[in-house]
Amino acid sequence: MTAQFTRADLDRRDAADPLRVFRDAFQLPENVIYLDGNSLGPLPKAAQTRLQDVVETEWGADLITSWNKHGWIDMPQRIGAKIAGLIGAAPHEVIAADSTSINLFKLLAAALRLRPDRRVIVTEETNFPTDLYIAQGLARHLGGDVELRMVARDKILDALDVDTAVVSLTHVDYRTGAMHDMADMTAQVQAEGALMLWDLSHSAGAVPVDLNDCGADLAVGCGYKYLNGGPGAPAYLFVADKHLAAFEQPLSGWMGHAAPFAFDPDYRPADGIAQALCGTPSILALAALECGVDLALKADPALIRRKSMHMGELFVALVEERCGEHGFALASPEVPEHRGSQICFRHPEGYAIMQALIARGVIGDFRAPDILRFGFAPLYLCYTDLWGAVDVLRDVMESGAWDDPAYRTKATVT
Amino acid sequence: MTAQFTRADLDRRDAADPLRVFRDAFQLPENVIYLDGNSLGPLPKAAQTRLQDVVETEWGADLITSWNKHGWIDMPQRIGAKIAGLIGAAPHEVIAADSTSINLFKLLAAALRLRPDRRVIVTEETNFPTDLYIAQGLARHLGGDVELRMVARDKILDALDVDTAVVSLTHVDYRTGAMHDMADMTAQVQAEGALMLWDLSHSAGAVPVDLNDCGADLAVGCGYKYLNGGPGAPAYLFVADKHLAAFEQPLSGWMGHAAPFAFDPDYRPADGIAQALCGTPSILALAALECGVDLALKADPALIRRKSMHMGELFVALVEERCGEHGFALASPEVPEHRGSQICFRHPEGYAIMQALIARGVIGDFRAPDILRFGFAPLYLCYTDLWGAVDVLRDVMESGAWDDPAYRTKATVT
Repeated sequence: MTAQFTRADLDRRDAADPLRVFRDAFQLPENVIYLDGNSLGPLPKAAQTRLQDVVETEWGADLITSWNKHGWIDMPQRIGAKIAGLIGAAPHEVIAADSTSINLFKLLAAALRLRPDRRVIVTEETNFPTDLYIAQGLARHLGGDVELRMVARDKILDALDVDTAVVSLTHVDYRTGAMHDMADMTAQVQAEGALMLWDLSHSAGAVPVDLNDCGADLAVGCGYKYLNGGPGAPAYLFVADKHLAAFEQPLSGWMGHAAPFAFDPDYRPADGIAQALCGTPSILALAALECGVDLALKADPALIRRKSMHMGELFVALVEERCGEHGFALASPEVPEHRGSQICFRHPEGYAIMQALIARGVIGDFRAPDILRFGFAPLYLCYTDLWGAVDVLRDVMESGAWDDPAYRTKATVT
Repeated sequence: MTAQFTRADLDRRDAADPLRVFRDAFQLPENVIYLDGNSLGPLPKAAQTRLQDVVETEWGADLITSWNKHGWIDMPQRIGAKIAGLIGAAPHEVIAADSTSINLFKLLAAALRLRPDRRVIVTEETNFPTDLYIAQGLARHLGGDVELRMVARDKILDALDVDTAVVSLTHVDYRTGAMHDMADMTAQVQAEGALMLWDLSHSAGAVPVDLNDCGADLAVGCGYKYLNGGPGAPAYLFVADKHLAAFEQPLSGWMGHAAPFAFDPDYRPADGIAQALCGTPSILALAALECGVDLALKADPALIRRKSMHMGELFVALVEERCGEHGFALASPEVPEHRGSQICFRHPEGYAIMQALIARGVIGDFRAPDILRFGFAPLYLCYTDLWGAVDVLRDVMESGAWDDPAYRTKATVT
């Protein structure tokens, strides 16, 4: 096979990359090629400074007065409004709060109230586990009244009927990177009278999302992946304007009250998206998230998508070209337009191979049962990072270095 | 009236205070007397250092590997086990997670499952609002099947019957500081076959709590008050060992799964308290909380209670003696043993008076409709702080300085 790429080609691509200025905004460790930003984004340098200020000045010096003085009380709305700009939503439709899991519970419960004559939740059996678990917990909690249909990816539309209240899907599959056609799926779901709920955890910040252009009803997403909001960053949720008046969610904590500091004994929901709040949010976590979101807002989403697609194509080509004989099978869609910002390969020794890569500073991750997952975050990755990663992969395979008992010991978190 | 105390008496008390060494562990601002640790505890100096390390080394340098390398994945259990030592629980009965509001939802829902033949939740109508709101939201969410009885403090026992599944009370009243007799109330509630759920938000870290000695069933509590865990710190929850096997909560996110990283499509709860976890927790927030908890664990709870009671008695005496003619009515119980670690006075101009105090560096807070609230955190307050606070209060009242339009503008957060 004739080499399609050389290292020099990639140097040229980096030199011409309009997004290359963003790399310097992140604190990336030396000697690491980080292809796991879809699991935990790296530290924005601005977050380091901001957190120091929040800790020393706001918490340390100004204490309780910071809720007003430094606008802590408005952070969920303020950051939500910023995230809206990344997902094609209006500022008043998005709020930063809690975790993706908890926000899923709120929105699935709300969807059942918005469609009171329909009691079925449809989802994909390969959806991210917490999306499935939360729907299972909600259905069980509500008793026999609610049915959860977990179906194969190509059977989603067949599963819809007049009982379907809501379809809950993740836009970009966490394991394969396969991306749903959001506009088409939303339209087909709504044609059956159901609501469409999108989990944007593996898309926002890396692939263009336009919820309102697609007419989506509800959405949730994660702050610690492509938004680079820090480990366990707060998540966010979206409720389309058309549903805000009737929106009602069961986790009715004081921060979602119309007047939390009136200390009324009766819950009276805040108008609009603020009703989605529950308890007191972590200010440290929100402050870090805001820095990540601010960075993402500075980048042109079209450039991000273009670079992400280039990186995916390049990585597939490099692995085929340089590691073609080592049994990697592409687990992501063949067509670049159908992929999110990651490339996955199946390999029977995937776990050990990934551990060998990590030991050599190429950080991707493994997803059971046999998937090596490589995420491409266009804000801070270089094209030459991909060359370096495939270099190490080739070395690990050709030397047989992956075949080491140390790489077979499963860690708690994979 | 003869003066009972002089400033010199208080200096002597400070000199003899065995807890005085703790003050230096906190970053307290100059020229502030901070009597609002029951709303937001101050910054432990250790948290400042620890957060810098978590941000720079763990997030920044070690990235995703920190889940294993720095034990992020075990933080909820580890910190929960430490908190157990503050509330008379066994380490495996407590976990740090989410917010107090969300933990209340989990435990009230779990209580209804543990008592499936009983469908009534009893609570106090003056309970902290979020405790009421969450119970209201849960009852509404479950439809007409569940009844919430909100009754006066002296009618709690009368409200119990064979339908009562759970009684949900806050140990120390947020507004008045009145403290329930935990052992007695728990016994009486359980004698009716109901479960007892305690909210420890205004007690843990400031008054002795011994859940297992009282035989309590369930509890929640807040991390950002007397535990000094930072603004919006994660909360915690307790499930007594006897209930762990049957415990089931509806917010069944992936962190509560028996094997989160097996990515099974079906929820299978973790054994024990880990099932109470839901989504990915904020590591920054947990790291700060742990520093606060570590400090609290170093102090002898008997000394804390003794100093807290001394401070309360002293503050009441000083206000009576030095501001007696200005119309402050004690809103807290007269008997020190019946109070938590705060003293509250009613005053028709309470809001403006508190704003005038805050403007002069004496930080307490106001709770509608007319309560001035002063919290005493024995770890970092001096006896002379109380002298100083009452000095300022006297000055504000005698000069009429409180009667200023600027002090009548309500802030978002009070």
